[in-house]
Amino acid sequence: MSTSATTNEREEGLTFQPKFDASGLVTCVATDAATGEVLMVAHMNDEALRKTIESGDAWYFSRSRNALWRKGETSGQTQRVVEIRVDCDQDAIWIRVEQQGAACHTGRHSCFYRKIDAAGGGALLTFVDADRQFDPSNVYRK
Amino acid sequence: MSTSATTNEREEGLTFQPKFDASGLVTCVATDAATGEVLMVAHMNDEALRKTIESGDAWYFSRSRNALWRKGETSGQTQRVVEIRVDCDQDAIWIRVEQQGAACHTGRHSCFYRKIDAAGGGALLTFVDADRQFDPSNVYRK
Repeated sequence: MSTSATTNEREEGLTFQPKFDASGLVTCVATDAATGEVLMVAHMNDEALRKTIESGDAWYFSRSRNALWRKGETSGQTQRVVEIRVDCDQDAIWIRVEQQGAACHTGRHSCFYRKIDAAGGGALLTFVDADRQFDPSNVYRK
Repeated sequence: MSTSATTNEREEGLTFQPKFDASGLVTCVATDAATGEVLMVAHMNDEALRKTIESGDAWYFSRSRNALWRKGETSGQTQRVVEIRVDCDQDAIWIRVEQQGAACHTGRHSCFYRKIDAAGGGALLTFVDADRQFDPSNVYRK
């Protein structure tokens, strides 16, 4: 009963109670508020989520670097948050953002710059958007 | 060097080589092909991905039920795939779909039916779309 009540509260309630995974993360999808294009999929921990809500800029948690980061802090390609939504079981976040320049570290506007060629059995990709808005070797120079 | 070459091939190449996590899954975002709305965030294993590409219907892998499922096989709320994209490091998939009815098990069109009220400090949610397109207790009766 208590599990059921909790599930119902999580799905139908008006209290934000994000369900973090074993690593303390929720998945976050960022879309371009103007075009609806999916820009990137990343992760947020509790602090990234709180900073995003408080500041209106997108913050994420990098699993590979094990560090909190403000999107664009190195590249300048920031994301201004227009709306934050949460899904039914509160383990995924959708943010609609105004993307400054390119979201992808490769310099493309979206990380999803290739599509799968289903006709070819799914083994091959085709570029949907190959254009780089910046040169990664300049932006991320060590 | 080999790691760098692999990363470059994965990010710039035309070979689809999905990077599954330790559980054998990639994250999949489904958006409504007509409106751009994010419908749901779920997971795919290798078989779900292959079946999705081959059939043109969305297949997922349920972590809670530890089972492959064709979206809508119980509810009838299927997803016809219009386009499949992969992100830069090939660990996330974006599918644009024609959603039959509602994507969410609660009966809403999208799982993201509530937004976070940032003005209130982020503790509260507001319904963006409360309307149910079906009654879950009828659709998922045991």
